[in-house]
Amino acid sequence: MKDESFQERRERLNQLVFEKGNLEMKRFFNLDHRVYEEGALSKKTKELLGLAASLVMRCDGCIEYHLRRCYEEEVSDEEMMETLSIGLVVGGSITIPHLREALEKWYEMKEDG
Amino acid sequence: MKDESFQERRERLNQLVFEKGNLEMKRFFNLDHRVYEEGALSKKTKELLGLAASLVMRCDGCIEYHLRRCYEEEVSDEEMMETLSIGLVVGGSITIPHLREALEKWYEMKEDG
Amino acid sequence: MKDESFQERRERLNQLVFEKGNLEMKRFFNLDHRVYEEGALSKKTKELLGLAASLVMRCDGCIEYHLRRCYEEEVSDEEMMETLSIGLVVGGSITIPHLREALEKWYEMKEDG
Amino acid sequence: MKDESFQERRERLNQLVFEKGNLEMKRFFNLDHRVYEEGALSKKTKELLGLAASLVMRCDGCIEYHLRRCYEEEVSDEEMMETLSIGLVVGGSITIPHLREALEKWYEMKEDG
Amino acid sequence: MKDESFQERRERLNQLVFEKGNLEMKRFFNLDHRVYEEGALSKKTKELLGLAASLVMRCDGCIEYHLRRCYEEEVSDEEMMETLSIGLVVGGSITIPHLREALEKWYEMKEDG
Amino acid sequence: MKDESFQERRERLNQLVFEKGNLEMKRFFNLDHRVYEEGALSKKTKELLGLAASLVMRCDGCIEYHLRRCYEEEVSDEEMMETLSIGLVVGGSITIPHLREALEKWYEMKEDG
Repeated sequence: MKDESFQERRERLNQLVFEKGNLEMKRFFNLDHRVYEEGALSKKTKELLGLAASLVMRCDGCIEYHLRRCYEEEVSDEEMMETLSIGLVVGGSITIPHLREALEKWYEMKEDG
Repeated sequence: MKDESFQERRERLNQLVFEKGNLEMKRFFNLDHRVYEEGALSKKTKELLGLAASLVMRCDGCIEYHLRRCYEEEVSDEEMMETLSIGLVVGGSITIPHLREALEKWYEMKEDG
Repeated sequence: MKDESFQERRERLNQLVFEKGNLEMKRFFNLDHRVYEEGALSKKTKELLGLAASLVMRCDGCIEYHLRRCYEEEVSDEEMMETLSIGLVVGGSITIPHLREALEKWYEMKEDG
Repeated sequence: MKDESFQERRERLNQLVFEKGNLEMKRFFNLDHRVYEEGALSKKTKELLGLAASLVMRCDGCIEYHLRRCYEEEVSDEEMMETLSIGLVVGGSITIPHLREALEKWYEMKEDG
Repeated sequence: MKDESFQERRERLNQLVFEKGNLEMKRFFNLDHRVYEEGALSKKTKELLGLAASLVMRCDGCIEYHLRRCYEEEVSDEEMMETLSIGLVVGGSITIPHLREALEKWYEMKEDG
Repeated sequence: MKDESFQERRERLNQLVFEKGNLEMKRFFNLDHRVYEEGALSKKTKELLGLAASLVMRCDGCIEYHLRRCYEEEVSDEEMMETLSIGLVVGGSITIPHLREALEKWYEMKEDG
């Protein structure tokens, strides 16, 4: 429920960007979509890259989005923990509050399906 | 209403800094006020500078404050979108959650007057 | 009360990390504990170091944790203000929203005991 | 001379990005160009925005580029100092090494013409 | 040659950390090694994660190290460009100076073998 | 020698800020000086705070300055290592290139006296 409202809010605000934002914003959003598409690297690997980058940058909204996409790409628990460990070691203890939230969301997502 | 409480809370906590903070904090707050005053650059341009810097640093409290000041300085929608676009391109997709919030607040502010 | 739930939540999520996290995460958490132990520098000084680092990194969860530890180590108001002033000057006005919260929490903590 | 080689190196490496980089990189570079073009805000104001954002992010390469563009857009010394002051107050004392370099480059640029 | 001296310097200074550093530093270095070892994710994928995280954090020393490791793990040019593109979009134009350097080093490395 | 030129350059550029900078910059520099003065916390403790904050913010110029001040305040090797360990754990592996440099400079400084 809480998670659904994250997605709904994200959706509504993206809509606002597309209605009110300028061409440059729209192009950026388009580009932000394209870099995660299947290529030489799989969509799954790219989502892990997005997640690790989001964790070290401590961006909760970004972490939550990539966690969901990782779940859709069928990332295993072990793969998730290894990705988060790299983020933790690269970014240090200031990532811990975000890591804790990520773990909670990951297991909530898996329970809720 | 939500926005008013942001301002009220900000006001109350600033009061706390002035009561309990040391001389250095007060001087910093004073300096933080002075750099946005009319000079060779207009107050409006300075608020845009403060907003762009706040967006790339992903500081929601700072963004909200400068958005309000931009509104008071009669920044147009086009000017706002161009400023936010620069912040988005400089700071990357990790600024997107903050950009979305900024757009929502901007249009709420304009509706509420 | 609000603060207690911060601690309870922190405790519950740390538990989750210890149950579900991998060995590397656990080792990191262990290391994160060890660096604040009494050594050539006192625990009190180390908590001040952790607090200053958390303020410039603008990590609210980390600030709240170190504030509580500083309180337990009997940091005085003057020492607290001097530490926060260094963080403010090093990290700039983008730390102000976090500084305001820190001051509020510090005085709440002292009232609640 | 030193500055010219900054520009030459920048040019040569941009060339490398256009030869070897993928479509997404090229689109990003294109977008990075577009956001500074004349619009509701002047090119000059946009360069000041880019400079302030670069200073708080402490990106020397970006600062040097925007300083040169500011010089081309005939930014005055007073406007430059006001922009850098905002960056200094927003970003704190950790921007000082970059601010010092910026001042040196600014006055070198003006002497060299 | 230039790259070799990067590696030699890195090696010599790591030696200094192991001689003079305390137990906590050594444990951190050990942990920093372990998170990139083969696991549920391959060493190659982990190096890409380390590289993307290093690019968004704009850490040249880290980028250079992971680029070399990616080369050893036989990352293809396409995979490299896709990884760097994600870093560019996540981290924004302030990563460009680091991206340019990364591209130069990548192709130098491939030529030098 | 190398270190002396760091200090000489720092001195010359600070001079430039005082000649060409505006009032706000000068006030900031003054404030940046004041927060490290003897108070409830000793100058030594304040330099350690400045160093830890500089390490997590990965500001080489700031690290070098505070290392020298720590040396003047007769910080012991153990105290130095404990301070740097906290910075390393808080800031993560991206601080390692800066930590390595800091260790090298610290022991050079002690040899050169």
